[in-house]
Amino acid sequence: MRHILSVLVENRTGVLARVAGLFGRRGYNIESLSVGATDNPEISRMTIVVEGDEHVIEQVGKQLNKLVDILKVKDISRDQYVNRELVLFKVNAASDKRSEIMQVVDVFRARIVDYGRKTFIIEATGSPAKIEALREALQPFGIRELARTGEVAMTRGQNFFE
Amino acid sequence: MRHILSVLVENRTGVLARVAGLFGRRGYNIESLSVGATDNPEISRMTIVVEGDEHVIEQVGKQLNKLVDILKVKDISRDQYVNRELVLFKVNAASDKRSEIMQVVDVFRARIVDYGRKTFIIEATGSPAKIEALREALQPFGIRELARTGEVAMTRGQNFFE
Repeated sequence: MRHILSVLVENRTGVLARVAGLFGRRGYNIESLSVGATDNPEISRMTIVVEGDEHVIEQVGKQLNKLVDILKVKDISRDQYVNRELVLFKVNAASDKRSEIMQVVDVFRARIVDYGRKTFIIEATGSPAKIEALREALQPFGIRELARTGEVAMTRGQNFFE
Repeated sequence: MRHILSVLVENRTGVLARVAGLFGRRGYNIESLSVGATDNPEISRMTIVVEGDEHVIEQVGKQLNKLVDILKVKDISRDQYVNRELVLFKVNAASDKRSEIMQVVDVFRARIVDYGRKTFIIEATGSPAKIEALREALQPFGIRELARTGEVAMTRGQNFFE
C-alpha cells in the first residue's frame, strides 16, 4: 500500500542526508520526496511517499523518530487528506498541432507558461492520477522534458499537524 | 547567488542519499530539493536550489557528476527559465473572515481545495516570490500548516535538457 508520511524536521544541513540514508540503507522504495520551509524558518516539512505494508511503515516511522533533528512524523494516509503535485512538461508544438495541444491543456485546467517557437512548457497541478492522465494525453505530441515536484499532502479539516 | 541545478539520475535506491550526503558533508546550503519520475520510469529528475558563488557551484556540479547513477547535471539559472513551486496552506477560516480570505485567494489565482468548518486548505502555484507574497497576505488569518514542494524549473524554448 501507498503511504504518505509528513515529517517536520529542524532546518539544518545534513537532515535530508540522514533521512535519505535511512531509506537507502534499508532498501525502502521512496516514490517521491519533497522538502520545503514551513511558516517557521527554522523548521522544514518533508512529504515522503513510500510503498509498504502497515508493519514496514510503522518501522520506518519509529526509525525516523529516532533520528536527530526529526521533530514529528505522521502517516497521514490514514486520515482524509488533500494531495497535490506540480509538473512542468516541455512538448513539441508544431504549428498544426497547437490548437489540439491547447484543447488538452484546457480540459486538464493546465496552463501554458512558455509559448516558444517550436515548444510549449505546460504547468499542471493535481493528484498523481490526474498528472498521469495528462502525461498520456500529451505523449502523442512528443514530451521533450518532464519535471515533477513530488507530492505534498495535508489532512482535511481541523486535524492539525504542525 | 541562487543557482538552480537540474540533475538526471537513475531511479535506484540510494541515489537520493548519495546526493544529499554530498551536500551535507560539505556544508552546502540546499534551499530546496524536489525529485520525481520523468517520462522514462528508469530516470528521475531532481531540482536542487542552492546558494553559492559561481566557483562553489562549479565544484558542486563536478562532484555530482562523479557520483554513481548521476546521468546529467546542469545549472539552468544561467539560461532563461520557468520556475514554479506548489504550496498548500491550512488557514483559520472563521465565518466572519471567509469572504476576506476568498478575496486574497482570488487575487493570487489560488484555489480553495478543502472548505472545512473552521479551516480552509488553499493551493497555490507560482515563483517563490509570489508564494512568499501570498504567505504574507494569509498570515493575519492564522496559518496552521504550510507544505511546499520545492521548486521545479525548466529552460525556455528549445534548450533541451533530457
